[in-house]
Amino acid sequence: MSILCVGSVALDSVETPFGKAERVPGGSAVFFSASASMFSPVQVVGVVGNEYPLDRLDFLRERGVDLSGVERKDGESFFWAGRYHYDLNTRDTLETRLGVFADFQPRIPDEFRRARTVFLGNIHPTLQHEVLDQVDDPELVVCDTMNYWIEGNRKELVSLLERVKILIINDEEARQLADTPNLLSASRWIRDRGPEILVVKKGEHGAILFADGWLFFAPGYPLEEVFDPTGAGDAFAGGFVGYLAQNGSLDPDSLRRATIFGSAMGSYAVEAFSVDRFRTLDPSQVYDRVREFREMTAFETHVEGIAP
Amino acid sequence: MSILCVGSVALDSVETPFGKAERVPGGSAVFFSASASMFSPVQVVGVVGNEYPLDRLDFLRERGVDLSGVERKDGESFFWAGRYHYDLNTRDTLETRLGVFADFQPRIPDEFRRARTVFLGNIHPTLQHEVLDQVDDPELVVCDTMNYWIEGNRKELVSLLERVKILIINDEEARQLADTPNLLSASRWIRDRGPEILVVKKGEHGAILFADGWLFFAPGYPLEEVFDPTGAGDAFAGGFVGYLAQNGSLDPDSLRRATIFGSAMGSYAVEAFSVDRFRTLDPSQVYDRVREFREMTAFETHVEGIAP
Repeated sequence: MSILCVGSVALDSVETPFGKAERVPGGSAVFFSASASMFSPVQVVGVVGNEYPLDRLDFLRERGVDLSGVERKDGESFFWAGRYHYDLNTRDTLETRLGVFADFQPRIPDEFRRARTVFLGNIHPTLQHEVLDQVDDPELVVCDTMNYWIEGNRKELVSLLERVKILIINDEEARQLADTPNLLSASRWIRDRGPEILVVKKGEHGAILFADGWLFFAPGYPLEEVFDPTGAGDAFAGGFVGYLAQNGSLDPDSLRRATIFGSAMGSYAVEAFSVDRFRTLDPSQVYDRVREFREMTAFETHVEGIAP
Repeated sequence: MSILCVGSVALDSVETPFGKAERVPGGSAVFFSASASMFSPVQVVGVVGNEYPLDRLDFLRERGVDLSGVERKDGESFFWAGRYHYDLNTRDTLETRLGVFADFQPRIPDEFRRARTVFLGNIHPTLQHEVLDQVDDPELVVCDTMNYWIEGNRKELVSLLERVKILIINDEEARQLADTPNLLSASRWIRDRGPEILVVKKGEHGAILFADGWLFFAPGYPLEEVFDPTGAGDAFAGGFVGYLAQNGSLDPDSLRRATIFGSAMGSYAVEAFSVDRFRTLDPSQVYDRVREFREMTAFETHVEGIAP
């Protein structure tokens, strides 16, 4: 089933200890759809400037990504430049130019309005509301956000939560949103405000899915060289939502697998600049990594008696 | 099979957001043996001052902890005072007085020298060497250390690694010891220097066991109230080594389970001050938590085809 994805379509200039990439495709909608399209067709809504090289995303069209909802406007595309430090956990933003994204007003094309699954990438919560106003009662609404909106637009964001089934954010954002250092308390606070499910991304430490009375851990996939961490979170969301849309169920087993598929896709994203790793990634490699995740976490519970 | 444990036997004054404890039993050997004795008998070698209330550890004797190797010396016991912050991940050391521990010279009693399993708690690497010089070719030597020795006594520490089968340290220490931000590279560097197995403790983010060609993740057990984080690492080591000593095998399945048992014991340690949680903990509760760990990480790998 098709996924409607609304988010940024950007150009990134990235410097890491391993190299440098200039003005390459980036943004939440790009990373998300590159990842999700391994599982399900994706319809993207976004905005770019005159100069955006949409042809560099042709490989996504071939994989079922419909880019007809990406508007071209007079002006410059959203541009972000950053530099990652030696340990790759910290980065400096060198430049952010919103360009045409500053006035982004998501218009959902008629043929996208009946999407059963909607992914709201990290944009202004008011715009996320407006997206939901334009769609026909989707079965699954998944949402991302960031500290900037938590600080500046808390009211709009909290009211949005009532319309969201799954919130995917990182651990700092979860703590900030719920105003508690404890992730378990934070998950209760957030789930009390609407989302049935909270997925907390913890970077190299993996991800945790919080549901009603249970939770699930996925470890971070250990990589010797994290080539470029940009987009890992959106690629995680893409694998997670893509798997759920393909699978068609939200039962616990599916949610567990979705968390692992998300982790696998996030781990592939960081192996190259931009969405380059997804150009050649094939399903068997995704399976292989999922099996590796199982190897890394499985253990037998049958144990001999414990001598007191 | 008995475990010989050499480490500190201390008094701790601890302040957390949840309360305060004054001069309660602490130290690596105390936390380790309180945890390990759930699985195997433990022989402790350490030193305390005149005033140490060893009777407060009587519950450990009843569980098979032999404290006859704990020397009493004229002077004060090792004393540590610390305060944990609101988020419990950072703490201030308010006071450290080494007391009689400053001149600690581990003397292994004759009846302890044939221990098949030796745990070298976090003490000077030269003393750890001296412990190994006094024992009869143990099957399993497990070692802990800390940043202080990595910085100040690197040479002695690195030569010790050749005599150690399993090194258990935290992630910062692993990175510092191997001088790399990448944990996978760090594990290779460390395992190249002797230990067949490296276990990296990551606090709330869990633990990773690195072995020859494979690794295993245990998540951090999610607790709403971490009452007192002191000793969690030693309790982890106690559960890990205790399970291995009881189980008698170092095959991958046993090592995986040991990592989970260590995680379970670490998670119990933080539910109360000092070793208080272990006074009433019973084996069935340990099993219950191990099963919870399985619930938190298990997923089915059987998945439907991925649509490209």
